[in-house]
Amino acid sequence: MLQEKVIAYRRDFHKYAESGWREFRTTAKIVEILRDLGYEVAFGKQVIHPPSVMGREPEEGIQQQMKRAVNQGGDSGIIEEMKGYTGAVATLETGRPGPVIALRFDIDSNDVIEREDEKHRPQKEGFRSVNEGMMHACGHDGHTAIGLGLAELLIKDKNRLSGTVKLIFQPAEEGVRGAKAMVDKGILEGVQYFLSGHLGFNLGTGKFAPKTEGFLSTTKIDAEFIGAGAHAGSNPEEGKNALLAAATAALNIHSIPPNSGGVTRVNVGVLDAGVGRNVIAPKASMKIETRGETAALNTYVYDKAVKIIESAAGMYDNRFNIKKMGEAITVSCDLKLAEWAKKTAEDLQDIDEIIELKHLGGSEDATFMMKAVQDQGGLATYLFFGANTAAGHHNEGFDFDEEVLMKGIHFYHAVIHTINQKHS
Amino acid sequence: MLQEKVIAYRRDFHKYAESGWREFRTTAKIVEILRDLGYEVAFGKQVIHPPSVMGREPEEGIQQQMKRAVNQGGDSGIIEEMKGYTGAVATLETGRPGPVIALRFDIDSNDVIEREDEKHRPQKEGFRSVNEGMMHACGHDGHTAIGLGLAELLIKDKNRLSGTVKLIFQPAEEGVRGAKAMVDKGILEGVQYFLSGHLGFNLGTGKFAPKTEGFLSTTKIDAEFIGAGAHAGSNPEEGKNALLAAATAALNIHSIPPNSGGVTRVNVGVLDAGVGRNVIAPKASMKIETRGETAALNTYVYDKAVKIIESAAGMYDNRFNIKKMGEAITVSCDLKLAEWAKKTAEDLQDIDEIIELKHLGGSEDATFMMKAVQDQGGLATYLFFGANTAAGHHNEGFDFDEEVLMKGIHFYHAVIHTINQKHS
Amino acid sequence: MLQEKVIAYRRDFHKYAESGWREFRTTAKIVEILRDLGYEVAFGKQVIHPPSVMGREPEEGIQQQMKRAVNQGGDSGIIEEMKGYTGAVATLETGRPGPVIALRFDIDSNDVIEREDEKHRPQKEGFRSVNEGMMHACGHDGHTAIGLGLAELLIKDKNRLSGTVKLIFQPAEEGVRGAKAMVDKGILEGVQYFLSGHLGFNLGTGKFAPKTEGFLSTTKIDAEFIGAGAHAGSNPEEGKNALLAAATAALNIHSIPPNSGGVTRVNVGVLDAGVGRNVIAPKASMKIETRGETAALNTYVYDKAVKIIESAAGMYDNRFNIKKMGEAITVSCDLKLAEWAKKTAEDLQDIDEIIELKHLGGSEDATFMMKAVQDQGGLATYLFFGANTAAGHHNEGFDFDEEVLMKGIHFYHAVIHTINQKHS
Amino acid sequence: MLQEKVIAYRRDFHKYAESGWREFRTTAKIVEILRDLGYEVAFGKQVIHPPSVMGREPEEGIQQQMKRAVNQGGDSGIIEEMKGYTGAVATLETGRPGPVIALRFDIDSNDVIEREDEKHRPQKEGFRSVNEGMMHACGHDGHTAIGLGLAELLIKDKNRLSGTVKLIFQPAEEGVRGAKAMVDKGILEGVQYFLSGHLGFNLGTGKFAPKTEGFLSTTKIDAEFIGAGAHAGSNPEEGKNALLAAATAALNIHSIPPNSGGVTRVNVGVLDAGVGRNVIAPKASMKIETRGETAALNTYVYDKAVKIIESAAGMYDNRFNIKKMGEAITVSCDLKLAEWAKKTAEDLQDIDEIIELKHLGGSEDATFMMKAVQDQGGLATYLFFGANTAAGHHNEGFDFDEEVLMKGIHFYHAVIHTINQKHS
Repeated sequence: MLQEKVIAYRRDFHKYAESGWREFRTTAKIVEILRDLGYEVAFGKQVIHPPSVMGREPEEGIQQQMKRAVNQGGDSGIIEEMKGYTGAVATLETGRPGPVIALRFDIDSNDVIEREDEKHRPQKEGFRSVNEGMMHACGHDGHTAIGLGLAELLIKDKNRLSGTVKLIFQPAEEGVRGAKAMVDKGILEGVQYFLSGHLGFNLGTGKFAPKTEGFLSTTKIDAEFIGAGAHAGSNPEEGKNALLAAATAALNIHSIPPNSGGVTRVNVGVLDAGVGRNVIAPKASMKIETRGETAALNTYVYDKAVKIIESAAGMYDNRFNIKKMGEAITVSCDLKLAEWAKKTAEDLQDIDEIIELKHLGGSEDATFMMKAVQDQGGLATYLFFGANTAAGHHNEGFDFDEEVLMKGIHFYHAVIHTINQKHS
Repeated sequence: MLQEKVIAYRRDFHKYAESGWREFRTTAKIVEILRDLGYEVAFGKQVIHPPSVMGREPEEGIQQQMKRAVNQGGDSGIIEEMKGYTGAVATLETGRPGPVIALRFDIDSNDVIEREDEKHRPQKEGFRSVNEGMMHACGHDGHTAIGLGLAELLIKDKNRLSGTVKLIFQPAEEGVRGAKAMVDKGILEGVQYFLSGHLGFNLGTGKFAPKTEGFLSTTKIDAEFIGAGAHAGSNPEEGKNALLAAATAALNIHSIPPNSGGVTRVNVGVLDAGVGRNVIAPKASMKIETRGETAALNTYVYDKAVKIIESAAGMYDNRFNIKKMGEAITVSCDLKLAEWAKKTAEDLQDIDEIIELKHLGGSEDATFMMKAVQDQGGLATYLFFGANTAAGHHNEGFDFDEEVLMKGIHFYHAVIHTINQKHS
Repeated sequence: MLQEKVIAYRRDFHKYAESGWREFRTTAKIVEILRDLGYEVAFGKQVIHPPSVMGREPEEGIQQQMKRAVNQGGDSGIIEEMKGYTGAVATLETGRPGPVIALRFDIDSNDVIEREDEKHRPQKEGFRSVNEGMMHACGHDGHTAIGLGLAELLIKDKNRLSGTVKLIFQPAEEGVRGAKAMVDKGILEGVQYFLSGHLGFNLGTGKFAPKTEGFLSTTKIDAEFIGAGAHAGSNPEEGKNALLAAATAALNIHSIPPNSGGVTRVNVGVLDAGVGRNVIAPKASMKIETRGETAALNTYVYDKAVKIIESAAGMYDNRFNIKKMGEAITVSCDLKLAEWAKKTAEDLQDIDEIIELKHLGGSEDATFMMKAVQDQGGLATYLFFGANTAAGHHNEGFDFDEEVLMKGIHFYHAVIHTINQKHS
Repeated sequence: MLQEKVIAYRRDFHKYAESGWREFRTTAKIVEILRDLGYEVAFGKQVIHPPSVMGREPEEGIQQQMKRAVNQGGDSGIIEEMKGYTGAVATLETGRPGPVIALRFDIDSNDVIEREDEKHRPQKEGFRSVNEGMMHACGHDGHTAIGLGLAELLIKDKNRLSGTVKLIFQPAEEGVRGAKAMVDKGILEGVQYFLSGHLGFNLGTGKFAPKTEGFLSTTKIDAEFIGAGAHAGSNPEEGKNALLAAATAALNIHSIPPNSGGVTRVNVGVLDAGVGRNVIAPKASMKIETRGETAALNTYVYDKAVKIIESAAGMYDNRFNIKKMGEAITVSCDLKLAEWAKKTAEDLQDIDEIIELKHLGGSEDATFMMKAVQDQGGLATYLFFGANTAAGHHNEGFDFDEEVLMKGIHFYHAVIHTINQKHS
């Protein structure tokens, strides 16, 4: 039964959770399953434009992750073929003229240590992450399973479809690091319809939103302060205190004023400074993100943050550097496509209630893909599939109602048919 | 030849560097060597008062370190006998009435990742630390070797000595965490003369200081802030930002005013906050030390730091806790004993120049031992043995001129004879 | 001619600008003019509920301002009758049954030093403020003149009107300090229709807005930090630094996170700390305002600000106190009354263009009056009368196109007739 | 009787307290009294080098102070002759060859509002300062009275003396703003012996210190931040917040690390920022002082403070400027002259106890005069005359035991004789 299969997929991905740019086992499994189904699959460096990659760890770490992936059952041949990059794109050519449709599924986990007690279902039922510090706490394991289940349905249904369907398995959505590198590789070229979606988000199982408003434009940066250490007791005057530079920057970044032009956000999420208690801290690093309702508003916050970092470094005679680690833009869903999606959902037994989503307040790098499609005259929308959850997204106790998996598969399947019919 | 032997000792300890409360292999080696020489040795829990132990890691980590120590050649029987605590005390009873003399050697390494290139002699000559993140960057490997070399000389010389000599091998001097637990166990009871010393400290090889002024009283604390995470884009109002609480605390702790009563110091050496870029930081931790020329001055700074931590936590609705991780006091060297040491040194070929040391600006928990001896009517002094060094203490490239080892041994040997003669 | 008269009124009020709770001469002039026209006028303590007064200076200062007002031509008898409180309410009873309409005009100046060069018309034409530090930089002198010109038209027109018209001359709108004390005195009781408005606001002369959206709920507070001074060179340890407490509070108040529930604002507009360069600052004061799109959002910011002040004071062992200095709420204009206003304006030659105003981003304490009227079943709206201005509101070079005065009078006159007709 | 006269002098100066560069009445009185005694007196611009003047208010204010001084009984002719500058130097030429001795008395008051209740003797006995905000809270009124009483004794004694005695009445010692301008005018040229001193300083009446150690080198600066205002509710993004720039600077200036080279001090004593509650603060100013045990240590702190100001301004896109407002250096008393002073004191009935003063922790611009004399081969010392005080120096309730006045006069008289004898 398909449902059992996709639940098994999801739990397997959950157990072997791999965070952004480390999804070697995940990608290998995806490739194996899709090939078995009969798909043509491009993957790894074939679907990634390396210069556009953001927030990928140094090569040495990548090598270790590849070894780990092989140890955890990833096919070593496939992994070798990836040439260090993750992600896959499967294409179904029906051989009949018709629309070019792309669906995107993100596959990476979070950097979270998963809850370990028995109240947490993945622990109790034996699929808690074996990779400490990597956990599917956002539901991308579910997205991946939906994509694979859908792939199976589509193959069986191939003769009733026309045009082309592309199934995109994107790495590194967390931190909005992966989509741009796929877009820049050209995988969206020719695509006329694009859909992606997310499960959960405080919507109960059975609810569905055919479009989304309020994506925030965002930039993710890492800042580094390089000062000079000194013995804090004997020679404090010789230090160039990077910890205080960073603390000053953090406070002032959070004081960036709001903007009458619209919503903005900024966060210094991580600050690590110093090497030892009795040493003036010689270095500090910060993980920062800026957001804005528009690109201009994001830039407004970003420019101020950079100025503050530069000044705080100067204040303590520190050097500094700033590295872009991720990026997403703001985009609008096409109402026409959203309307088709809504109609499709209304006709499905799987969906109980259709709702309107506003003010998301979050960011998604699917927006790069949506924009690429819109720029070439296509239509795009971003969906939400309700699912009861055991805890908030990104929480160590996150888990979701697996009923959502088949609902997602059924919706995607149906909407492809809808587009086939409506397309002219 | 003794010199070759002590150099070998030093390099062995250097290679298997163990930081505070983890010196299981080191202690086992010390016990083996001393027993072979014929000493009665107490060690581990026999010489440590657990309630006075500061800055020791959780039991789980200790168990792992014991396993590692055994794997690295530590005698498993001896290690088991330690009952989780490190350090040793060897006693030489001459059988003749005379002075009770104690010498103290600290044995722990730093938390430093050792330099790896060929310009660094330990790397080039194969004794770089195999324990990543633990390195003898302060010279305690040398102190330990001096203690063991001295033990050999004393045994051979036993018949020419009277009274008792205790050789104390103290764990966890870094962070001033270990001496108090030995004092509280009572190992200084009855001791009439106490000497300890340090090599290096910008004094070239051949220089010697018979006493020290300007120890700073110090307290080491870890502070933890516990706030609440929240998605920084969607629900910033739900967060209780521990990163900003800690940053505010750090800035204000460094603003604690100086004191007209004497030198004070404070340092927030380490600040780690947050879990992810897009999450309001739910937690933060800081490693802090306060110092003062007197206990009252240290308390002045300490009390202000605590108040600031408490207030900064309150400002962001955070909970907090503060844990004492180390402590040392200030003490004066006894001029009479220092004078004997000076005279002893003047008569040695090993010593080229005798100098006066002032304003140390650092802290030492040997001060607890000195005070314990002084409180029972004894005399104590703290020495410096000059040694050319390749880099500053605590630096990843630290190394020292091993000529200092025999100089130290010869001095201690000679000064025991001096005390034997002067004591009445 | 009425136009010349109201321009003369406006310039007289401009020249003798009086800021909030100091409008003794202004009130006396208003009372004189209205009485001469035949109005029954209540004023001073008769129209103010003292316990609800916010941000009024100490009695001593009030006494001095009363003396100044008399010196500047205010009727001493009237001023004495005020019993220390400013503001006036004139009532026109037509004797015929009909609607009870209230119009509100604010009369206070800003705390601004007026521009002194010849390019500034009030200077050139001799009506620059003679009261240094008090200047009509917001146009309330114009509002007052409009109210008085309207009073003259209404009296002449009395026989064509029915019901009751109340003309409210409100003190202390700047800082939103005065309206609540008039409401709490009960001057709005029985009022069925309420209108107030503002001139200028970047709308050119001839433009008109019949309603306003986006008032922000606001609270104005003064915070005081009381520490202890000490000689910064000799005894820094004895100080309790109020300057650093205030600086810490200011930075952290500006770091209060945004809220996904809607727009919030916070500002520490003024910070004064310390008494001398070489003294640890023993005291500091801050002027703060919080705002929110709803009362709950304003409270969210306010509560955090208070917590921060309390914690920052605690951090430096300071005492503190917080005093509410002003308050305004958010309210919606009644669309029905706004529609009548719009229709009225469309029929007037004075109005060239009718526009919709959104997202004001500011606060107004007329909102207390609007809410009082709405709570008893009445209708209320807040208007804008466009006027070219020489500089932004609150700027030292502010001046406005006096053409707006007759436009305002004509509109108010006409809208009263409209309400007379529509009321049933 | 001389004692009654000098007490009357002191109380007159106390009542008409004049702060730095405003001592017009004080100087006029000094000139009158000294001329009456028969002295040649240079004063005002004759004894001041204007380019070296620091911290003098704008000319306009000076003009007002001169008017005030005349209104308070200052001789208008003398005041006019001063040409805007205060201070005086009286020279006693004995006509006999001998030493050139200079004594210096500072004459300015503090910027303090004097205590007003009856427990404060100056209030009770009618000599509380009539100049609000100016108060002799440091005892310079006493220094001036001692100088004038001594002048009378010396004139009577002229025939028993040889050489030259210069009595220097220096303006603007508070804030260390005046001495340099007198030195640069050349008034110390040819001086071979220099003495100055201070009364009070926690030494009881009758105690005496013949020399001082531990003057701190100091620099006084005013920093100004120029940002841009904006309505905090409507357009917060347009502001350039000078208040936050200054707050950040203040916190980080107080975080400048101590120095192992010796005592340092820094204080932001005053911070004034902003123009109104609802405006992003467009400007801020700070009064700062840096100190160090040596000139190099003062420079260490000063350079860091400047860097912090510059960086904090940059952080908020503010312009800034820094103005030097005062300066004093560190200097050592000559032991030979101090010894003569000590011997002199031992022989006087007025002095009960001679003490040694260390670690002053304060600054004095007499140090410029001392250095000038030492640089030309002369000897200099700085004395302390004990006096019971009612409150600490610079406190609003400061008052001192007037017994110290005659003790000071007798000592200076006697030490001149001593120098006459010892000089060769």
